[in-house]
Amino acid sequence: ILCNKMYSSKSLFTFLFFPFLLLSISAHSYTHRARAPCKEMVFFFHDIVYNGENYKNATSAIIGAPEWGNRTIMSSPNNFGDMIVFDDPITLDNNLHSPPIGRAQGMYFYDQKDTFSSWLGFSFVFNNTDYKGSLNFAGHDPLMNKTRDISVIGGTGDFFMTRGIATLSTDAFEGSVYFRLRVHVKLYECWKLL
Amino acid sequence: ILCNKMYSSKSLFTFLFFPFLLLSISAHSYTHRARAPCKEMVFFFHDIVYNGENYKNATSAIIGAPEWGNRTIMSSPNNFGDMIVFDDPITLDNNLHSPPIGRAQGMYFYDQKDTFSSWLGFSFVFNNTDYKGSLNFAGHDPLMNKTRDISVIGGTGDFFMTRGIATLSTDAFEGSVYFRLRVHVKLYECWKLL
Amino acid sequence: ILCNKMYSSKSLFTFLFFPFLLLSISAHSYTHRARAPCKEMVFFFHDIVYNGENYKNATSAIIGAPEWGNRTIMSSPNNFGDMIVFDDPITLDNNLHSPPIGRAQGMYFYDQKDTFSSWLGFSFVFNNTDYKGSLNFAGHDPLMNKTRDISVIGGTGDFFMTRGIATLSTDAFEGSVYFRLRVHVKLYECWKLL
Repeated sequence: ILCNKMYSSKSLFTFLFFPFLLLSISAHSYTHRARAPCKEMVFFFHDIVYNGENYKNATSAIIGAPEWGNRTIMSSPNNFGDMIVFDDPITLDNNLHSPPIGRAQGMYFYDQKDTFSSWLGFSFVFNNTDYKGSLNFAGHDPLMNKTRDISVIGGTGDFFMTRGIATLSTDAFEGSVYFRLRVHVKLYECWKLL
Repeated sequence: ILCNKMYSSKSLFTFLFFPFLLLSISAHSYTHRARAPCKEMVFFFHDIVYNGENYKNATSAIIGAPEWGNRTIMSSPNNFGDMIVFDDPITLDNNLHSPPIGRAQGMYFYDQKDTFSSWLGFSFVFNNTDYKGSLNFAGHDPLMNKTRDISVIGGTGDFFMTRGIATLSTDAFEGSVYFRLRVHVKLYECWKLL
Repeated sequence: ILCNKMYSSKSLFTFLFFPFLLLSISAHSYTHRARAPCKEMVFFFHDIVYNGENYKNATSAIIGAPEWGNRTIMSSPNNFGDMIVFDDPITLDNNLHSPPIGRAQGMYFYDQKDTFSSWLGFSFVFNNTDYKGSLNFAGHDPLMNKTRDISVIGGTGDFFMTRGIATLSTDAFEGSVYFRLRVHVKLYECWKLL
């Protein structure tokens, strides 16, 4: 139930009775249509930003900031220009202390001057009995929206060549130091390596 | 008028008269061919880099630099290693003061020692009557070339799952502080969520 | 020999005898299957990180680091949070001094606290008689694994719209300053612009 090609009835007719015309005609008559994802999954990940005093528990750290910022406190206003590298546990429920089933690793940075908004480039990395492989994500994340979509731009292993959409929602946060994201992964392009 | 699969006449023949062989044979006989984009758009975006004195007007800021650089002046030579986070207005014409129809948000960094060249990871974000959604871009941008192509790696909302090419050209620049890019977006893979 | 759609024999039957049902039925019955890449290539690239004393030979530089790091020595432990921008020569064999056939340009950062692991966003840039164009890569690179896969998320020029997998292996390294990666590019989605 992934996607299909839409043939007009005219091109169908042509297809059956004038097969040698197919080549030129089929170039004009389809688009990708998705009815439902080929795969869906829900995960949570947990980010604890280094603030100068929590090195042991921190799962992420500021590694770049504008001239007016620094690497232990988010810059003001709206964290604009702060870049964070993260190594966050992924869990199946919203409990930080649940057994992690993988890691969310990558970076985000705040990229709007007048509100909180960020851009993400990261991977979900799995190596367990259910999933082996990685999902690669990129996109714009306007944090203040209840839900927001980013792109699944590729994958490896069990997620070979996949593409899709991930819907993010902030499940909880405490100041700028802890936040938990719910990630609803919807893959619309699935591949199988024979 | 998007793309099609090229069947050789031999496999076409097989297709019509030996349909039960189709499964094994169709694995060997097509590639994607694009004749024209399924969607084309032209935009401009405007970048004003923070230089220590223009905080109010600046739409971007240096947030990382090599050891020999700093965050108010581009590093020498060729800005190599400087990373800039941006929050730039998108307009339909080349006038910085035209009403913005969206924002270009993301980052670029200079990645060539012997000339000006950069790498971009960013989104176009739209929320107006014409377009709602985002386009995600990534790729190599050799600034000194008149035109250069980067990848549209995904999209959301009206641009659900899209892929394509964006042709960039520098429409104007003043020193290292202001530049204006013309972006010709050509989408070759369009999707519709039913 | 790229990929195909799997029709169940039931839908095949329907396809041949009830063609007008095709539209609704074809939406439910295929996935992408890849038997072999549409294109394969092997390259090497060479990274020499700036360490405060090797400016002339260096092909890359640390441009971001966590509070406990700096821009001439990798941070401890495991380089976590260090971001490197690179401009590396690509060669066809494992000799740093072979004539470069292109450049690998982009960035990586170390994103795991308890081991060496990184995330890559970069391009291969070609402008020679064999290849003109770029390949764009993104993904998770767990350095300590013998081989690891990242995504080819797009391409331009000769690699218009391509997607695939790149298998990386560390061919050699000396401390944190020099390393050489072998990159086996396997493209599974090839496009032709007519």
